[in-house]
Formats: sequence, C-alpha cells, structure tokens
Amino acid sequence: MISYEPLRGTKDYFGKEAYEIEYIINSFIEVAEKAGYTEAITPLIEQFELFSLKGGEELRKTMYVFMDKGGREVALRPEITPSIVRLYLNSLQHFPKPMRLYYYGPVYRYDEPQYGRFREFRQAGVEMLGDDSILGDIDIIQLLLEFYKKINLTNIRIKINNIGIYRKIFKYIGVNDEEQEHILHLIDKGKVDDALYSIRADSKILEYIRLILNYNDVDINNVANVYNEVEGIKIPGLQEEFDRLKDLASIMNKMNVNYTINLGFVRGLAYYTGIIFEVEKPNLPFSIAGGGRYDSLVELYGGPYTPAIGFAIGIERTLAALTDKNIKSDINKIVIIFLDRDVIPYGLNIVEELRENNFYVTINTKDISLTKLIPFYAEQGYKYLLIIGKKEQENGSVTIKDLGGKAQQVIERRELINFLKLTLS
Amino acid sequence: MISYEPLRGTKDYFGKEAYEIEYIINSFIEVAEKAGYTEAITPLIEQFELFSLKGGEELRKTMYVFMDKGGREVALRPEITPSIVRLYLNSLQHFPKPMRLYYYGPVYRYDEPQYGRFREFRQAGVEMLGDDSILGDIDIIQLLLEFYKKINLTNIRIKINNIGIYRKIFKYIGVNDEEQEHILHLIDKGKVDDALYSIRADSKILEYIRLILNYNDVDINNVANVYNEVEGIKIPGLQEEFDRLKDLASIMNKMNVNYTINLGFVRGLAYYTGIIFEVEKPNLPFSIAGGGRYDSLVELYGGPYTPAIGFAIGIERTLAALTDKNIKSDINKIVIIFLDRDVIPYGLNIVEELRENNFYVTINTKDISLTKLIPFYAEQGYKYLLIIGKKEQENGSVTIKDLGGKAQQVIERRELINFLKLTLS
Repeated sequence: MISYEPLRGTKDYFGKEAYEIEYIINSFIEVAEKAGYTEAITPLIEQFELFSLKGGEELRKTMYVFMDKGGREVALRPEITPSIVRLYLNSLQHFPKPMRLYYYGPVYRYDEPQYGRFREFRQAGVEMLGDDSILGDIDIIQLLLEFYKKINLTNIRIKINNIGIYRKIFKYIGVNDEEQEHILHLIDKGKVDDALYSIRADSKILEYIRLILNYNDVDINNVANVYNEVEGIKIPGLQEEFDRLKDLASIMNKMNVNYTINLGFVRGLAYYTGIIFEVEKPNLPFSIAGGGRYDSLVELYGGPYTPAIGFAIGIERTLAALTDKNIKSDINKIVIIFLDRDVIPYGLNIVEELRENNFYVTINTKDISLTKLIPFYAEQGYKYLLIIGKKEQENGSVTIKDLGGKAQQVIERRELINFLKLTLS
Repeated sequence: MISYEPLRGTKDYFGKEAYEIEYIINSFIEVAEKAGYTEAITPLIEQFELFSLKGGEELRKTMYVFMDKGGREVALRPEITPSIVRLYLNSLQHFPKPMRLYYYGPVYRYDEPQYGRFREFRQAGVEMLGDDSILGDIDIIQLLLEFYKKINLTNIRIKINNIGIYRKIFKYIGVNDEEQEHILHLIDKGKVDDALYSIRADSKILEYIRLILNYNDVDINNVANVYNEVEGIKIPGLQEEFDRLKDLASIMNKMNVNYTINLGFVRGLAYYTGIIFEVEKPNLPFSIAGGGRYDSLVELYGGPYTPAIGFAIGIERTLAALTDKNIKSDINKIVIIFLDRDVIPYGLNIVEELRENNFYVTINTKDISLTKLIPFYAEQGYKYLLIIGKKEQENGSVTIKDLGGKAQQVIERRELINFLKLTLS
C-alpha cells in the first residue's frame, strides 16, 4: 500500500503555500540581480567528496549518500556553496573577478525533523569569488539586508563574528585544520568545556580563548578591549582580525543596521575563515539565514588562491519568520462556458485572446446545468462567467454574467476586452 | 581529487543558459496560472513504490533508488505526475473538481546520456484531476499550445492517439494489465512483431491490431475507415474510443492546430488510458513535450475513481528546439566606486535608493586606481560609473561617468534618480 504522506521530513506545498515559496524566491532573484549577481544552476546530485571534504562533522553525518548504478558514491547536496565553487573551478575562472553568483533550490539533510528543520528544504544564496576586501563583506551583508527589507521582514537582527580570530590563535598554538574543525564543531554545539579540553595549549591561551568565547552581545568598543587583554602575548595576524570586525561594525553602525557582535558564535560548516554572520528573529529558535567568508575553500579543491564570501537564506525558515504574509494579490478570475460542442473553436479563440490580454480564464469542463454552474463558480471566487452558445457564435457576441452582482448582459465580442478592462480594473 | 565536472549526465547552467531555463519556467507559470491552474510543489525524493507501481518498464530500470538512513527504499522522482496524484489523495480531495494543478522541477533517470537526454533534467507540467470530458482534453492541449506560442516556438506539430483503442481490444481478448504494459512497452520500442507475438488472440484480431498500428499520419476520415474495417467483430467500447479521437481531431481542425493522428503511437509510461499526445519539432530526434489521459491511476493508488489528464514539457528539450532565443533583455548596469572608507555609509544609502528604483547597481570592491577601473567596467558592459568621494559626500553629490561616451559630470544626489531615468530609458 502506498502512503499518501510525503516521506518523513519532506513536505508538499500547494496553492497559497506554494505561492509563498515562489514569492520568496522571486524577491530574492530580483534583489540579487539588481546587485549585479548572475544565476548559477548546478545539479542536486554530486560526487560525495565535494561535500564531505570540508562540510563539517554535522553535515557529513546527515548527508543522503548512495551508490549510483555506475558505482559512483553520490550525495544529494546538503548545501549549494561547494557546487558553486566546483562550477567556478570548472568554467568560470577566466571571468573578471570578483565573480558574483546567486542560486536557489532544495537541499537535503537526514536529520531528526522538528520546527524549522526538514530533511528536504530550500535555500537561496549568493557567493562572491575572488575578492577579500571589507567592501566585499559589506556588499554581501547589504544584499542580505536588502532582501529582508524587500519582503518586509524588518524585525530581525544580524549576529556577527570573525572566525579568523580563532584561526589565528589555533595557528599560533599549532592546532591543525582537522583539529580546528572538531573544536569549532564542539563550540557550535555549545560544548565549550569539551572544546577547551581538547586544545593542547598553555593555560594562559586557554583562558584567553574562554574569555573571547564569553564576549557576546557586545559593541565595537568591547571588541577593542578584549583584544587588549591578550596584549601580553603577540599572536601574528590577530590584531588584523579584530580590526576587520571593528571596521565592519563601525560601518554597520553608521548604516543603522540592527546587529550584535558575538565572539562566542561559530557556524557548523567547517570552511569559514573570516567574517561570519547569521540573521535571527526574536522568539524563533533558529537562524533564518547565515553566511561568511571562506578564503581557502577554492584552494582546498585544488584551485588557485581565491578568497570568497557568501550567504544562504533558509526559505522555509524565512517564511516561518514572516508572520504578516500580505503577499497574495487578488486575481479576477473568469470562467467560460460552452453550451454546445460546435461553439468550442469560437470560444477557444476568445479564451486565447483574453489570456493574451492578461486575463485569467478557466474553461468549464463540467456538463451540468447553468443554474448549477453559477453557484459552483461563484463559491470558488470567480468574478465573471462568460457564456458561449450558438446564438452568441452567430452574432459574434458573448453573454457575461457578473457572479457578484448577478447582472447579465450580451456584448459584442470585439468589445469584450475593453469591457473587462474597464470593469475589472 | 575532486572532479570539477558535474556528474555524468548532469549539467551546470550559468548566466545566459540559466536565464533561458528561468525564461521557460516563468513563461510556463504565466500560461498555467492564466488558465486557472494552481501550483503544487512536491518533494524530489519519494517512496520507491510510488513510481514503480505504474511507471512502466523503462522507468523502473532507470530509476535512482536507494535506502535512506531510516531503511526506507526511496527514489529520486523520474517524473512528477505520481507525486501530484499522491498529493491529491493526501490533501486535495475535498476541493471542487476538476482540480487543476501545475508543477515544475528536476527529474532523474539513470540512462545513457545523449543529445536531448540527461540524467538530471527539468520538466514543467499540469494535471487536471476529476474530469473525463473532451473539454478536459481540449483544455490541456490548448494550454500546451498556448505555452509554445508564448515562447514563440511555432514550427511544431502535435502527434495524437487514443491508447483507449488498445485498452478496449486488450480487454476484449483478455490481456491483463501487466501483459498490456509489456506489449505497449514493446510497441513503444518499435518491436511490433515481438509485441504481436506475445498476444494470445486469434489471427483476425492480431491482423486488426497490426492494421491499426500502421495507420500513421492520417486524417480524421481515415480514422473512421480503420474502425469500419473491424466491423465484423464487435468490441465493446471500441467505437467510443474512435469517436473520442475523431471528435477531438475535428475540433483541432477548426482551431487550425498542426496535428497528426498516429494510431501506432504509444507512450513509455504505463498509466495512460485514453488520449495521448506528444509535441515534435522537425529535425529533432526527440519529442519536446507529451502527455495524456490516465483515468485509472488514482484508483490504482487506492483512491476513488478520478479520471485525469496532464502533460509534461521537457524544459531542456524545449530549449534545444528554440533556436531563435531572442529572450534576453538588455540591462543598463551601473557600478559605484567609493574613494574612501568613510564615504561607504553615504554611498550605500545611494545604492539602496537606486536599487529600489529598479536600477542594477554593482558595488566596486577592487582597490585599484580609477584609470584601471574605468576600462575594467567598460569592458564588462557597464553603462555608468558613479564615483563617491569625500567631496561628493560633503556636497551631497555624485560624480557620474558615462562609460560609453566618456563624459563626466557632478550632479546633486536628489537629482540622481531622475537623471538616470531620463538617460537610461
């Protein structure tokens, strides 16, 4: 027996819900294109290694992986950034940099479903490849905020950190990439003590890391202070990482962005190297978008040094945050009824003309009496009923019934478009 | 080492190619919505049985199937109709009928890649559930033709048959559903002799089937003749099936549709019961769209009798047929350059205002001299370069450089939008 339910953790969308998904995607596309980003479409299935190489522990455990009929180990994409990097390496390296790309589509994670977490869900995102400037960071964050402004989701806050701070400390004390990934994973899961326990370093450094981890919801001046507290030890490149965060924060201050700096905030994906951020909405137990700088991923895939930054929006999560969804425009629907098979070609000609003029016209297929059809369509919210019989065909006319006002009249076919334009506008 | 190529049989789309995919999808959505169809979005992964039950031999052999981490046998959808039927049974049975739904998205078939055949490709389609009228057939075919007209693909022909003719003959001679599927599969593969050989029936019937199979590219009158040739045997319901085809053809004649009736034409999917059709373009070795009536699929899934008809468009195949792709509108791109970090907030404010007024504005992130930036952006087709320095910020102005004409001028910020609207329109 076939189950009528979609697979656990996956979801059907119909009507208004499907329209909301389209609305988010279309709004995103518009904002991204206006900011100079170009669309990239990549396959949903990819070689497993593409995602496993630097996706992070969490992602690897929850990936949909299988062998295809040709014996390849393939995965349903758990995110889209690695595919964009692959596409860049395969086909786009010769374009002027930075290369600005956007994408959207479903991603897959075999996780325990809960509020805001599905096994199949949708992301829309951008990547800027070949740029390491602070203006690159700003370009990306500005775009993200413009998107949320576009869909009228204003009660949001952006949480920021610079993962480069940890990278520089880890490098200084000799923690390799694999260990870094594990430590950041533990911090991301809230297991700070476990994380610190697994770091082999002297207590002064460990205390400093703990200090940084506790600097949350702070402003720029505090960020300056926390750096000063470790002045005794000179960690190469660390000041620059703090400065980057401070510079970014100072620009965001002037832009009146609602943000917070959380030095204890890390992200689940293992490839971030610099500024990271997440968008939060009060009272929601999950972030609705996130991203960051990943300056070494292209090299890790065997390409040339190509600094990069991007973000991904959770489409379903953004919809969950958008409580006031005033996004469906009213459409004046028309239904057309053919009283006789012989009038079908005449009627279809009218249908085609109306649709070409942007009217929404449904062809009635039900073979029941007009007195039954009228309430049937009125209840479904149709505005007009057009009746085409032999008389109408002979006279080149159409009978129009207003399903709201109940008035009925015969008008000439050539006046139909103008009549509808006048009465439906 | 990670391969930069997408998996065999899958494809990346970027820039113009991605735009073409979007163009096809958006055109389809517009046509479907105007005809009263509502969007349905279903998961790309489903229980295997949903597709294996009645997909046909071909489809079963080429499906991407695997066990998920929960031990479920799941498949990447090879087509979308079964998911729509599942959704209908799960959630939509209480809506007024007919239920008109549309969908689009990727589908998967592990097949040998060749021209017009990928392992991941895209379909867009509609389904009308709960209607068995000839007007339902016409609604669907009209919509399909409107779509091709909308994208200016006019040099096409629609091939039509009524698979109900075979169903009635098979029923008469006692061929069960499974055998019917196999026979139709053989006919679809061009193995007519094998197909006939596997039918247990007297030679008169076999000769009649062979006769029908050879009636290709015929007009309505021939269809009437071929039915008459078997008048000696009275097969229940057969005349009605011929009549349905004739009635449809007679309406299409009056609508000036370029069609052909091929009584030897069957389709690979096993669930069709009535009118079937495919859209062809001369010189292309594959059909670009196809569909038909499947009046028993809902029942097969355990639901109530619900006659249905639908079609699916092959998006990549349609693009292959669309040789004259005059679909990209020219965009006047603007790039904005900040000469100093202190002017970023002032400049970003201008960026936001411009984008809200529908201008396409890229933020320059490159820290190189203006004399190098000008040719860099001119070569990429940017129309205007906006320069923001301290002087501009102090005066509330913007310096504009026309990258085509090379003229440069300073204008007040409040006049910027009007200036651009006048010069870019």
